[in-house]
Amino acid sequence: MSSTQGKVITCKAAVAWEAAKPLSIEEIQVAPPRKGEVRVQVLYSGLCHTDVYTLSGSDPEGAFPAILGHEGAGIVESVGEGVDHVKAGDHVILLYTAECRECKFCKSGKTNLCQAVRATQGQGLMPDKTKRFTCKGQELFHFMGCSTFSEYTVVSQFSLVAINKEAPLDKACLLGCGVTTGYGAATKTANVEEGSTVAVFGIGCVGLAVIAGAVAAKAGRIIAIDTNDGKQSWATKFGATDFVNPTKLAQGKTIVDQLVEMTDGGLDYTFDCTGNVHVMRSALEACHKGWGVSTIIGVAAAGQEIATRPFQLVTGRRWQGSAFGGIKGRTELPGLVEKYMKGEFKVDEYITHTTDLDKLNDGLQYMKSGDCVRCVATISHL
Amino acid sequence: MSSTQGKVITCKAAVAWEAAKPLSIEEIQVAPPRKGEVRVQVLYSGLCHTDVYTLSGSDPEGAFPAILGHEGAGIVESVGEGVDHVKAGDHVILLYTAECRECKFCKSGKTNLCQAVRATQGQGLMPDKTKRFTCKGQELFHFMGCSTFSEYTVVSQFSLVAINKEAPLDKACLLGCGVTTGYGAATKTANVEEGSTVAVFGIGCVGLAVIAGAVAAKAGRIIAIDTNDGKQSWATKFGATDFVNPTKLAQGKTIVDQLVEMTDGGLDYTFDCTGNVHVMRSALEACHKGWGVSTIIGVAAAGQEIATRPFQLVTGRRWQGSAFGGIKGRTELPGLVEKYMKGEFKVDEYITHTTDLDKLNDGLQYMKSGDCVRCVATISHL
Repeated sequence: MSSTQGKVITCKAAVAWEAAKPLSIEEIQVAPPRKGEVRVQVLYSGLCHTDVYTLSGSDPEGAFPAILGHEGAGIVESVGEGVDHVKAGDHVILLYTAECRECKFCKSGKTNLCQAVRATQGQGLMPDKTKRFTCKGQELFHFMGCSTFSEYTVVSQFSLVAINKEAPLDKACLLGCGVTTGYGAATKTANVEEGSTVAVFGIGCVGLAVIAGAVAAKAGRIIAIDTNDGKQSWATKFGATDFVNPTKLAQGKTIVDQLVEMTDGGLDYTFDCTGNVHVMRSALEACHKGWGVSTIIGVAAAGQEIATRPFQLVTGRRWQGSAFGGIKGRTELPGLVEKYMKGEFKVDEYITHTTDLDKLNDGLQYMKSGDCVRCVATISHL
Repeated sequence: MSSTQGKVITCKAAVAWEAAKPLSIEEIQVAPPRKGEVRVQVLYSGLCHTDVYTLSGSDPEGAFPAILGHEGAGIVESVGEGVDHVKAGDHVILLYTAECRECKFCKSGKTNLCQAVRATQGQGLMPDKTKRFTCKGQELFHFMGCSTFSEYTVVSQFSLVAINKEAPLDKACLLGCGVTTGYGAATKTANVEEGSTVAVFGIGCVGLAVIAGAVAAKAGRIIAIDTNDGKQSWATKFGATDFVNPTKLAQGKTIVDQLVEMTDGGLDYTFDCTGNVHVMRSALEACHKGWGVSTIIGVAAAGQEIATRPFQLVTGRRWQGSAFGGIKGRTELPGLVEKYMKGEFKVDEYITHTTDLDKLNDGLQYMKSGDCVRCVATISHL
């Protein structure tokens, strides 16, 4: 039993006091886990564009003050009443897509979108509609069911999974979002076929993970698309066979024209990893008539809409989306970790920058540079 | 060998001289079939909204003067060089969705959208880019590879299929479009699961055929939606379990609200049979989060676009389309005809009106009345 069990923990966290302001490093109080909850010492957290998006104030669900961060790994400090699938000392990855195994969604066998904690998670609250963080007497909102930018956090028992203790957590944390999202979108949601053609729009962490998934699925041709030529070498390193910069096409030629020409009629599978609704349209329309499938992964700004002529669908293209790669966190992440440990699955290769909790704002700045794929922050030390 | 083989046939046809004008019953000349072509005596033709749409002038592909009609059945009069899968005397259904069995599309195993004659069909021409119809010295365009509003027509060998000679052609003609389109969309494109929930928007011939397909797939609940209350008894007769008139909902309630409420979160499968892009959006958004699939069957007016927030897809809804129900005409229609002959598949029940070639304009008027599901015209007599 840890010496802190049942007690309030005072620790350090990066607090987002309000939208569009830098994070502030503060001393906070973290209450003990209640029934069905788990308190975790966060060791590492990746920085993801969703953190930046919410901090910018554009996220309609964003509630302040809050502790952001959702791509984290750490060690269970203590568990609340009734929690039996993890225990103190377990190494865990936090899950912004929970898995309760009891709701209609979990039982459907058709989706990973567990709804057990969805409503309260969207409100920045624990499932009992209260908060566990306090700073200077003020309660702080939770974020995406994780809040990994704190040395300690409290999450629902459905929002974490224990993994192999041999796995390095400074790498494995990336499985909590970007890497799993892209890899799963290719291998699970779209279920890319051997020998097929694939196009990936947007070569960040998620786009590279889609490429890795397409390689694992033995796709015959993988075309990476990005407006930044610097991404070509990255795409190639991960297994893309071609690179296209859509801003450098011949006069009057669209990216759809280019891709249809390159592939004799269009792609079998396309993926949007940009969040740009116009790119999403191009990704659909670059699909092959009769069977091409376009998967939206990127998150669009609030209120934005995708559009196309319905004829695109009537002639056999399909439009779908993927959240967390269609992966069920508790059921499937331990297996992905094992694949990583065996060298069958890239993780280390995405990390271009590191930082720590005190310098999280620097990390958020790195993300705006074109050469940052993933920045991992050390949040606390054992 | 028929006495007319190799000769020009003079016969009667309904000519569409120009857009938005009534059809004109004329004496025309029909040239013999060339290599790879078949001349057919058309006995019966259903009237479909696509005929009306093209005649209205709204179809960008519409070329005049032309012979319209595409839902026909008849008897092979003669075949051109190299045609070996049908012969004079065969009873046939004409196929606006051809099946060559040799193109990339036919061989893919993923689509029924054969492209062998697509380009010329869209131009109103035979595959060799010429025409077979002449009226008063002027050549007439073909339509959808069929042109069934003529006592004789010439089609590509890929655009017809021989069926059981015992099948009544005045009913079987409907398998050339509407009935197959709806039934196949449910049973093949969407592959409705046993026990699932289904919503069908637009209860015309195609919508009723979707209901019939959902019944065949043993759907648990089938909700029919139409603004015309007169369609309720039709929907019920075909097996719908519920009927909703979206113009008669409680104040402030949308059809999406209503359907989500009725089905505890949304439908497993929805179908648009209206061609209205706003209805298409509702059909998608009424799908259940995580797995709902919406299939567009209706043909939208030129230039119109569908739209939604990408979040609808990222949270697991899928958007697709279906043309001719995903059915391969030459391979699958004979089997559907057998099912019909055994009483396992409704066809007669769609026919509310009949007319003949001389009165085709009356038939087109019937279609504008709310009580017309399908009107079948007798085109010629044996």
